[in-house]
Amino acid sequence: MARIVTDDAIRDTLSMREVVKTMRMACREQAHGSLYAPPRWSLDVPDGSLVLTAGAAMGVGTMGFRAYETLGRGPGHQGLVAVWNAEAGYFDGCIVGNRVGLLRTAGLNGVAAGALAREDARTLAVLGTGPQARQGARAVCAVRDIDTVRVFSPTSDHRETFAERMPEKLDLPAEAVTAHDDPEPVVRGADVVYVATDSEEPVLEADWLDAGTHVHTLGPKWADGHELPREVFDRTDVVATDSLDQVAAYEDEGGFVVDDWDERVVELGPLVVEGVERDPEALTVFCSVGLAGTEVVLGDRYLRELEREGN
Amino acid sequence: MARIVTDDAIRDTLSMREVVKTMRMACREQAHGSLYAPPRWSLDVPDGSLVLTAGAAMGVGTMGFRAYETLGRGPGHQGLVAVWNAEAGYFDGCIVGNRVGLLRTAGLNGVAAGALAREDARTLAVLGTGPQARQGARAVCAVRDIDTVRVFSPTSDHRETFAERMPEKLDLPAEAVTAHDDPEPVVRGADVVYVATDSEEPVLEADWLDAGTHVHTLGPKWADGHELPREVFDRTDVVATDSLDQVAAYEDEGGFVVDDWDERVVELGPLVVEGVERDPEALTVFCSVGLAGTEVVLGDRYLRELEREGN
Repeated sequence: MARIVTDDAIRDTLSMREVVKTMRMACREQAHGSLYAPPRWSLDVPDGSLVLTAGAAMGVGTMGFRAYETLGRGPGHQGLVAVWNAEAGYFDGCIVGNRVGLLRTAGLNGVAAGALAREDARTLAVLGTGPQARQGARAVCAVRDIDTVRVFSPTSDHRETFAERMPEKLDLPAEAVTAHDDPEPVVRGADVVYVATDSEEPVLEADWLDAGTHVHTLGPKWADGHELPREVFDRTDVVATDSLDQVAAYEDEGGFVVDDWDERVVELGPLVVEGVERDPEALTVFCSVGLAGTEVVLGDRYLRELEREGN
Repeated sequence: MARIVTDDAIRDTLSMREVVKTMRMACREQAHGSLYAPPRWSLDVPDGSLVLTAGAAMGVGTMGFRAYETLGRGPGHQGLVAVWNAEAGYFDGCIVGNRVGLLRTAGLNGVAAGALAREDARTLAVLGTGPQARQGARAVCAVRDIDTVRVFSPTSDHRETFAERMPEKLDLPAEAVTAHDDPEPVVRGADVVYVATDSEEPVLEADWLDAGTHVHTLGPKWADGHELPREVFDRTDVVATDSLDQVAAYEDEGGFVVDDWDERVVELGPLVVEGVERDPEALTVFCSVGLAGTEVVLGDRYLRELEREGN
């Protein structure tokens, strides 16, 4: 019998460490060619779209898709992840809501931080306070012994709420997480900088970043609208992404922030499989695009865990 | 809150008359250009596919898709229909199973029978005994005062079970439904002939059909594999289908049974809107291809009805 649950049912089902581990497995499948992730597909209606990103991971033996709408006049962009067994051919179930999509993105960033951030990283800077920023902070803390988190948001309420609520989520003392109204002291001296805003103007300056810092960018990455300044990319030898195919798709819509991405940007899957020799003085950047197919791998992992728990 | 149900929950939710009415509304939207039905899309994995047929009906204000797998080693090809509100942008819910797909096909055939069968049709011939044949018989009985049903299947068990169980479903006395081991006496003299087999060889001969008969074909319709003989199409002036776009797609896979379909085949939507002046001596044929998008319209109708009933 197929299992059908909502976001609420999976809230405490997997630790972030387990989410990152599951996404690392998906990256390995990508590197080995057993992850199928065709370009996203959409049904366009007058004021928006229904977007479908399908995927299959034949190592795990799962296939399915995430679907969500972009009309967004209801309570959030509501969607679901549906999962089939890709070997025996039955419907495993679905998870209604947006949590799987959110967590797989955080999980992939956790994989990237695990591969690229210095082992001795202790300080995390977070720019942005939305769900991606909050789950991203959890993901970085799941792979490195972070003891200090500084957050910036231009909105006082947002940054204060982040500083108030996140210590518990990150298993840190209250004083370890601080809110700031200026991004510069947040970024300066940080070992990992997590940028998850919706800004199309750069939210930091490249010379605030120390050598050896690892940077994540989740927000706008267009040629003519990006949250990270181009100088950050100029300063680094390692620019990684979770999907070169999806980076290539930026071409159709105005271009990617890194002009020569096809020569410079490397994919996370091979990095995970082959490992990275990290120069401690190198700046590294992870451009998060949300590798298609990974929602299904994570959805499958949740459904299996719920089954194991007898829920 | 999104409503998530399985096939069992919708078994007795709508009468076949209501299903046909809902599909007639979808046909009207098609004729008026407010039904969006892009070509189906699939994710191909080593031994099969995950198939997605999306659609939107902006008159009703609904959008979504049907998804099903073709691996089929599990218990049936399991799928689901997912429905969003296409105006306000929220997820309405989903129906897990195959019943909506099955019933919308029957419903569309009911619309076709309502538009093309003679008003005084009383006798129905059914070739095939599967779910499509059974629901199709219900659909024809929902639009015409059928008093006699004759069924043919080469398999004795199948035809006997059909004759035993269908009278109740069709609201007919037991003796009104009879099973036959020869298709000829089933077809001869029938006013409506419903062909729903998986045969790629013709299952009837054109000269068994009286003038004025209306024929449905749901099974194979390939140029080189079809359940209706080509002579049936040669004898008729009215060949209709629920989707010319989907008939056109046959070209890519070996051709449609009607060579000059682009000149001869008409679409059901305009027939419903404009009405048909039926020559009582004409043979009419409906080629059922399963207009994409209609699963969503019917799924939406079911979810609304469940809400109305407070389930």
